Amino acid sequence: MLSFQRLITINKQAETPVYLQIAHALIYHIRMGVLRRGIQLPASRELASLLGVNRNTVVAALDELQAQGWIVMKPRAGVFVADNLPEIKPQALSDNNTRYAAQTSFDLNTARMVPFPYIHKRGTSSYVLDDGLPDVRLAPMDALLREMRRLSNISAFSRHLSRGAAAGVQSLLDALTVYLNDTRGLHISPSQLMITRGAQMGIFLAAQLIIQPGDHVIVGEPGYHAANLTFQQAGGVLHPIPVDDQGLDVDAIEQLCKRIKVRLLYVVPHHHYPTSVMLSPERRMRLLELAAAYKFAVIEDDYDYDYHYLSSPVMPMASLDHSGSVIYIGTLNKTLAPAIRMGFMVAPSNLIDAAAGLRRVIDYQGDALMEGALATLFTDGAVTRHVNKVVRVYQERRDHFCSLLSSLDVSFKIPEGGMAVWTRFNNAPVAEVAAKAAKIGLHMSDGSLFNHNATRLGFASLDFEEQEAAIALLAKALS
Amino acid sequence: MLSFQRLITINKQAETPVYLQIAHALIYHIRMGVLRRGIQLPASRELASLLGVNRNTVVAALDELQAQGWIVMKPRAGVFVADNLPEIKPQALSDNNTRYAAQTSFDLNTARMVPFPYIHKRGTSSYVLDDGLPDVRLAPMDALLREMRRLSNISAFSRHLSRGAAAGVQSLLDALTVYLNDTRGLHISPSQLMITRGAQMGIFLAAQLIIQPGDHVIVGEPGYHAANLTFQQAGGVLHPIPVDDQGLDVDAIEQLCKRIKVRLLYVVPHHHYPTSVMLSPERRMRLLELAAAYKFAVIEDDYDYDYHYLSSPVMPMASLDHSGSVIYIGTLNKTLAPAIRMGFMVAPSNLIDAAAGLRRVIDYQGDALMEGALATLFTDGAVTRHVNKVVRVYQERRDHFCSLLSSLDVSFKIPEGGMAVWTRFNNAPVAEVAAKAAKIGLHMSDGSLFNHNATRLGFASLDFEEQEAAIALLAKALS
Repeated sequence: MLSFQRLITINKQAETPVYLQIAHALIYHIRMGVLRRGIQLPASRELASLLGVNRNTVVAALDELQAQGWIVMKPRAGVFVADNLPEIKPQALSDNNTRYAAQTSFDLNTARMVPFPYIHKRGTSSYVLDDGLPDVRLAPMDALLREMRRLSNISAFSRHLSRGAAAGVQSLLDALTVYLNDTRGLHISPSQLMITRGAQMGIFLAAQLIIQPGDHVIVGEPGYHAANLTFQQAGGVLHPIPVDDQGLDVDAIEQLCKRIKVRLLYVVPHHHYPTSVMLSPERRMRLLELAAAYKFAVIEDDYDYDYHYLSSPVMPMASLDHSGSVIYIGTLNKTLAPAIRMGFMVAPSNLIDAAAGLRRVIDYQGDALMEGALATLFTDGAVTRHVNKVVRVYQERRDHFCSLLSSLDVSFKIPEGGMAVWTRFNNAPVAEVAAKAAKIGLHMSDGSLFNHNATRLGFASLDFEEQEAAIALLAKALS
Repeated sequence: MLSFQRLITINKQAETPVYLQIAHALIYHIRMGVLRRGIQLPASRELASLLGVNRNTVVAALDELQAQGWIVMKPRAGVFVADNLPEIKPQALSDNNTRYAAQTSFDLNTARMVPFPYIHKRGTSSYVLDDGLPDVRLAPMDALLREMRRLSNISAFSRHLSRGAAAGVQSLLDALTVYLNDTRGLHISPSQLMITRGAQMGIFLAAQLIIQPGDHVIVGEPGYHAANLTFQQAGGVLHPIPVDDQGLDVDAIEQLCKRIKVRLLYVVPHHHYPTSVMLSPERRMRLLELAAAYKFAVIEDDYDYDYHYLSSPVMPMASLDHSGSVIYIGTLNKTLAPAIRMGFMVAPSNLIDAAAGLRRVIDYQGDALMEGALATLFTDGAVTRHVNKVVRVYQERRDHFCSLLSSLDVSFKIPEGGMAVWTRFNNAPVAEVAAKAAKIGLHMSDGSLFNHNATRLGFASLDFEEQEAAIALLAKALS
């Protein structure tokens, strides 16, 4: 006779009812071959006494096992492990807790694996000079959550909580169409718009739909690593084009177009990533003309449109495009918070339809409650008020940060917009500076994504005091 | 002299300030070639009088244009359109409002386009017999939103609102690990778990990482169209295996494995989609043994684990797997609401790491606030209480629905679990029935996804009265 006390451990404090704990333990031992097919189990009364539980509990466990097909109760004969289960050779019981943990590897399709860097491992640092993120403490989360709660109590909204459209909740498509036409000088209808989880999903969907393996893709150098990886993942061949203080070198692009068939160009004209320079109006227009002449698509990533300090935001290239070359991508993650995932893509409607279809495959649809609430925040002006407020705050933070930074042995230009300063280290390798900084409680990127002994230092998420503390630590790391 | 009154339309009611409206209009006309490079613009006083606005407004507009590089102000000479802009031939102004709308097509990579069916176009129907969705009116949205609000006001949580991990917020990974180990008989650590947007994202990530183009993939017939499309999109070759009243035909799988190298098997053992049958314990064990012997991976989609009525939910195959073959995928969309996007994937940690990397490319990360709030709902028992409540409700709804359905000329088995009845139409083509039903206010799937003159009729989202009204309409459509 097997020792059932040893096979079955009962924890009366656990959330799982005791009868299920018994059933699960018996299934496990049947599966492991300890309880072989066809063998008889003790009677319920005996088992109850062995385990120190009420007989009804054991009866419930056996009913459960019978319902699931693991045991058979034969009238006047007893309870048996089902004999139609495959024969198993017993396993060492020590497997129990380690069998999953032991699976440390799985044979993967390495072609699909993406070496995506984690640039925000803050760890336990007291201060973070981030990549250019907003201050989430200023985000209108209260208004958003209040509206989500209101909508969730409206029965007419509840059908949106059931299955919905992959392109987004209609009320948000409508509200965002008006907002984009009004603020970005676009002339779109809702069918040319879809809601995404952020700029990255827009880049992914567009890349998948436009790039065929081997297609040539123009990107900036230095450029945005995440976009570059996304294009490579879709099979694109990257052609890095130098970026100077007016943005992408358009002459170099024209030379390239004369030599090879370019399929796609990725550009952040408002504040180039990582250098934050603005693409000049002249180059914007030449770029659009090259796109029309050489028939390549343009992904215009306008991830921080609102944050411009020299003037009002510069209207996107999409507002000037009349050859239909531009896919305009934006995000609300910089307006709300990076971890509130909401963005958009503007494109001809056949591309939007295809992107919505592809989106079904990757995450089915967006978050309807949040989309619905955001629609209200657009139409009642809360988004505009929030943007107006934080642009002033971030401009002051930029100025304060740059004046602090100017006391260090680094080179930079005061950015006209965006949320980070592109900072070159004059006499110290940035990787060493970052390593020293980490030891004294300051996290910053080590610049390895850029290869220019430079990195982005975000100023928007820190108030004056925090900036002063962070720069004091950076000064120490530089000394 | 150009007629500036005609070129610039001002709307004092619009949200965009008037000076920006003027600036945008001038940029547009520069871009269109109406205002050529190098030409002189009227003085600000004159322009103000022509447009009927304050002179300061025009000065602000010109400052804006200068800051953006479109015009040059020459001291003692006047204001000129910048002459370093490319020469443009004038465009017909009628282009203005139609230029985007005219872009009705974009050259796409058709290989990547996914013919993903929209199965929930409810339109204006009064009643919907859906695919098996929960009743969102019962979802614990209040508790979830209350907790989101509480967290958003806790400063320690705010760093999660900045950039976070692609695998999910740690508190949810921890809480869900405990919950899954407790309820599903798993023995995992948080490193073997990632948070997704729902089952579909898990299927997508696993398919991308496991399938090489040309790999053989086993699916059920009838089966889940969305999973099938996802495998095909990754390059997989589908091998449909018949499903009978005990689930997938395991003998047929073994025969297939002897002939070809199978890479992946997709199975919904708890309640097969679309037929809702449960895979028998015997077949579960044989399937795991085949996976170990022929070294194929198993995606176990357990999308409605909680909704089982015959007995307690049957523990997943993942809990019995000790060869490391099973990728266990689940969703909370059926627990909360389909449009609250939250799911999970359990797998060996090297697959989880790779999937988190790939997830960065498609949507960067999840929604940290919702993930954090959900962690609380797991640890304080709210999820368990909710599940216990709705399982009772759905069981009553299943019984009521099946008794109504039995009066019609259809064939079905009462499902042991899940939220839909697999319904065969005896004497009428289901497509015709669905078309007739739509005309009288009842939406149901036309069965075209299944090819068995059958469809799924969801019972969980309708209360008794709604079920009675819906079935009365279905009876009419059948008559």
